[in-house]
Amino acid sequence: MEHTQQGISLAVSTVIFALRPHPETGLSTPWIPLVRRITKPYEGRWALPGGWVSPEESLADAAARNLLETTALKPAYLEQLYAFGEVGRSPDGRVVSIVYWAMVRPHEAERAAEGENVRWHPADHLPKLAFDHNAIVEYALWRLRTKVGYSRIARAFLGETFTLAELREVYEAVLQRQLDPANFRRQVEGSLVPTESRVSGGRHRPPRLYRHDESIELVDNGPLASP
Amino acid sequence: MEHTQQGISLAVSTVIFALRPHPETGLSTPWIPLVRRITKPYEGRWALPGGWVSPEESLADAAARNLLETTALKPAYLEQLYAFGEVGRSPDGRVVSIVYWAMVRPHEAERAAEGENVRWHPADHLPKLAFDHNAIVEYALWRLRTKVGYSRIARAFLGETFTLAELREVYEAVLQRQLDPANFRRQVEGSLVPTESRVSGGRHRPPRLYRHDESIELVDNGPLASP
Repeated sequence: MEHTQQGISLAVSTVIFALRPHPETGLSTPWIPLVRRITKPYEGRWALPGGWVSPEESLADAAARNLLETTALKPAYLEQLYAFGEVGRSPDGRVVSIVYWAMVRPHEAERAAEGENVRWHPADHLPKLAFDHNAIVEYALWRLRTKVGYSRIARAFLGETFTLAELREVYEAVLQRQLDPANFRRQVEGSLVPTESRVSGGRHRPPRLYRHDESIELVDNGPLASP
Repeated sequence: MEHTQQGISLAVSTVIFALRPHPETGLSTPWIPLVRRITKPYEGRWALPGGWVSPEESLADAAARNLLETTALKPAYLEQLYAFGEVGRSPDGRVVSIVYWAMVRPHEAERAAEGENVRWHPADHLPKLAFDHNAIVEYALWRLRTKVGYSRIARAFLGETFTLAELREVYEAVLQRQLDPANFRRQVEGSLVPTESRVSGGRHRPPRLYRHDESIELVDNGPLASP
């Protein structure tokens, strides 16, 4: 293990959310990819994709590289979630982990090379993970549920255009509760732009497609440079 | 300088906001304490209070210790702001800085041992700082202005009870624009609890004192342990 002269190692981890049907209820719910550890500590346990930071790469680049190397996933963007640095969070020396997160759409999620040592898990129904990774996922889920209320984060799970029902299903999956369609329409309409298109199909009046108001940034990093 | 085997050093910095009159306009505005560097690199330049992380202390503890040692400030809480880790942000090797922030009230701000090497500066009118600290302050100001809209962060600048005018002045200082008193009252009343007390003084009908609804967390860290 690489570590500082003071005995501190700098790592990155990633929490990648995709919406998939829950194995029991069948309802859409957040899933995350996990990697089985093949070295000590916690050999054999599932863990968030991650690894060490190299001196010549930024934190976000290190997170993207480790994610790609372990899972073949390559999200359109990674946002910094939090730096976890409690003493004793690793049994094998002091490790500070900068955690990044992203939401990916189904076709992006399919890139993940699933196998014996890489597998998607429902985020609210995880085995006991390595290190403090259960607590990290719990925090990421809380941020996802909080942030959906005041940002356009739900859009990251959707394509460029979507129906109101599709957008509501994303909110329902994230918040894990049913929403009233008429109330939902009133709440989100102000941040949406109706397109001229409707869903193609045989229905008499197929639902209209919307897109988000592009004047609002997707990843709201303010004066930080976009990743 | 202490650094990792890969050549990465782990530091902490703090952005501490207090509201004080602007030196030119006299209007309340955010100020921050800065420390003059007495070592290379950037010897003689002003910088955010900070220093290295020791292996036996958490990141928040390291931030609090470095802040106390350099400025004698001891805020009631420190919240993690962001980890800055771009390659080349220090001319003297790779440094990753975990930045913490806090808002302090006037009597807390007065603890800062001002002198030749510690001084408060208006946050929107800074000299050229060491490292990327100007960009860090700009990001912290943006977060402050954004967060005041959806959290109780303004309360950190106030006492337990306050008048609507005092609360509005905090918002005006943070947002740097005047707010209509009647509109402001309508927007914030839902999150406030009126007390039985009024401001003492000789007026016929002195203004009522309010407090925030305690059912909402001040530092909204979700499932993260409170600092």
